[in-house]
Amino acid sequence: MMYITRRERFNAAHRLFRPEYSDTKNMEVFGKCSNPNWHGHNYELFVTVKGTVDPETGFLINLKALSKLIREKIIQKIDHKNINLEVDFMQGQMASTENLSVAIWNELEKPVRHLGAKLHCVKICESENNFVEYFG
Amino acid sequence: MMYITRRERFNAAHRLFRPEYSDTKNMEVFGKCSNPNWHGHNYELFVTVKGTVDPETGFLINLKALSKLIREKIIQKIDHKNINLEVDFMQGQMASTENLSVAIWNELEKPVRHLGAKLHCVKICESENNFVEYFG
Amino acid sequence: MMYITRRERFNAAHRLFRPEYSDTKNMEVFGKCSNPNWHGHNYELFVTVKGTVDPETGFLINLKALSKLIREKIIQKIDHKNINLEVDFMQGQMASTENLSVAIWNELEKPVRHLGAKLHCVKICESENNFVEYFG
Amino acid sequence: MMYITRRERFNAAHRLFRPEYSDTKNMEVFGKCSNPNWHGHNYELFVTVKGTVDPETGFLINLKALSKLIREKIIQKIDHKNINLEVDFMQGQMASTENLSVAIWNELEKPVRHLGAKLHCVKICESENNFVEYFG
Amino acid sequence: MMYITRRERFNAAHRLFRPEYSDTKNMEVFGKCSNPNWHGHNYELFVTVKGTVDPETGFLINLKALSKLIREKIIQKIDHKNINLEVDFMQGQMASTENLSVAIWNELEKPVRHLGAKLHCVKICESENNFVEYFG
Amino acid sequence: MMYITRRERFNAAHRLFRPEYSDTKNMEVFGKCSNPNWHGHNYELFVTVKGTVDPETGFLINLKALSKLIREKIIQKIDHKNINLEVDFMQGQMASTENLSVAIWNELEKPVRHLGAKLHCVKICESENNFVEYFG
Repeated sequence: MMYITRRERFNAAHRLFRPEYSDTKNMEVFGKCSNPNWHGHNYELFVTVKGTVDPETGFLINLKALSKLIREKIIQKIDHKNINLEVDFMQGQMASTENLSVAIWNELEKPVRHLGAKLHCVKICESENNFVEYFG
Repeated sequence: MMYITRRERFNAAHRLFRPEYSDTKNMEVFGKCSNPNWHGHNYELFVTVKGTVDPETGFLINLKALSKLIREKIIQKIDHKNINLEVDFMQGQMASTENLSVAIWNELEKPVRHLGAKLHCVKICESENNFVEYFG
Repeated sequence: MMYITRRERFNAAHRLFRPEYSDTKNMEVFGKCSNPNWHGHNYELFVTVKGTVDPETGFLINLKALSKLIREKIIQKIDHKNINLEVDFMQGQMASTENLSVAIWNELEKPVRHLGAKLHCVKICESENNFVEYFG
Repeated sequence: MMYITRRERFNAAHRLFRPEYSDTKNMEVFGKCSNPNWHGHNYELFVTVKGTVDPETGFLINLKALSKLIREKIIQKIDHKNINLEVDFMQGQMASTENLSVAIWNELEKPVRHLGAKLHCVKICESENNFVEYFG
Repeated sequence: MMYITRRERFNAAHRLFRPEYSDTKNMEVFGKCSNPNWHGHNYELFVTVKGTVDPETGFLINLKALSKLIREKIIQKIDHKNINLEVDFMQGQMASTENLSVAIWNELEKPVRHLGAKLHCVKICESENNFVEYFG
Repeated sequence: MMYITRRERFNAAHRLFRPEYSDTKNMEVFGKCSNPNWHGHNYELFVTVKGTVDPETGFLINLKALSKLIREKIIQKIDHKNINLEVDFMQGQMASTENLSVAIWNELEKPVRHLGAKLHCVKICESENNFVEYFG
């Protein structure tokens, strides 16, 4: 079993808040991330897939195809966007990094299988000090 | 002449556009950065000051004092904020990294002098591929 | 199952040696790390916790609370300190990175549980070329 | 169970192609990596070993010995070399990062055991956007 | 005067040697870099331009245009190539990083002026430990 | 005029204090850096030299020779040492990064000239947030 990881990057605005909370409670739970005027991040996305190596090509997966897939399914929809307002696969959810990793997993799992590999991990770095990992 | 640099970080939302431009022209000039729903970045700010070394302390400047100054004058006003809407020293200006570096220079120049040093450079990294430097 | 990681940093002095060894044997086993006059490092500490995501907040854990916990239990006791002489949770042990990761695990395991998550990994980078990981 | 990782680096030229493929097919499958005139990379190699900590030394393994081993078995044979033409443990194989990780695993597994630890993972970063991990 | 920098990356093979030198002398002067079978690097290219900020756009230069220019003039010609054999602007020269920075300067100086800015610096990182800077 | 930079690294312990100050005053001026039991850092040292490129070799300077020089004159004396107690070129001085950069400049200036180049800058990074630069 071999694992290969592709990194892609995107920039986006977001906000963490619950409309039914008071401003005070939103600030208490979500802190500065609840700012009604939004804030944003440079996100790093690491997609790890696993599988066996094709003895003819020496490849687990064609990395160019994996990169193209991530760009089409994720980056084009989220880069330079507002995660709360504009990203279809995040609608109806809190725009946390945890939820984002699950949503990206759900978008990528099937198409990665069509490339002949198995999605293993979605990792998102929101800053140099914080990252989440989701293994399905 | 000695130079010392302090790095601080902030996250913010912004948008590049001119209200008098059509949507098409804004897209043409500013690309994805003109998204009306905002996007954002993890910004890195490098503040370089110059001066002579105090032979008693071996310091050009007290770095803790410099860090405190940058946090009070800049980071507290811009971190987790919307640069276009909420940052006083950016009002009435295009929220570009170039303009941001000039505005931060203007906020820091005098208070750095009060710490006994001279502001030399404001550098802002907007992504791992782009940065600006302003020397006053 | 979701995993989230918080990075914190500290600087410290340490020394690797056994008092019952001769100087020659200490040098042979521990090399330059046995220097009686100490040396030091910028350590990076990565604390990974696991758990389920709260559907109301979208959080596995409040990262601010996790950061505060790591700072109170670990960073305040070890930052700008001498690990051999001053860090209570390292007393009576060789000040190796391996032992440090176990000791930090032991300090954090229970309080992380009080935050509603489960400690998964303590990773410590001693230099850009060396790191240890301990999973309990 | 403790895990410790040592990073070593090497620069090398390589090429991905199959002699029985036409130039067009090589380009289709391997893209720019099939360039007959070679290209190259700065590779980062992360070798992770696992084991128990010796209570006398506080070490899982002597890192200097691990580093020396990796340099003798791998780096000296591959650094500033042509992977396809000059690296004995890659002969007869496609010079992909996947195959390289398996070949390095095979070179290191037994000698790591002689150092009293168990090889856990060989990770190779070919660029800042791509890496493979092999766990045997 | 404002400075803005764009980073682009390329991978290439090269070799340092003089045909009129003996193998021994080539090894003595150029070391492992003289390997007749080539080796390679992940190069990082930082292009810094200077100029004044357009008050209407807040831009010194359109970074997308600068990136496009660097890709057309440099990256397309050198990425995944052999610098000695295939890169037109390096023909007849030693494939050192110093010479590469001068050659890239010469390729970019005029077209950068057509974008309304002035080329200030070409910086090339050949490894994490070595880089050159050329200011014309 | 061409500039080339070599990075070397070292780990060391140090302390900032003045024996004639009270403990309170040392803490006030130097903060946690005045800890009598020492603390330490992973220092990064960037040595930049300038000169003209030899048309025969394409080199400004032989980087291997420059690296050897820095290791002999600086790294061997300071790596895994106590800067206050053990480093000859820092005796009688406050062990600040500013003073360290001047002292390293003084050690390197003449021998760099013997290699046929001119020392341009000594840069020392004490942490990811702080660095000094000295240009002589």
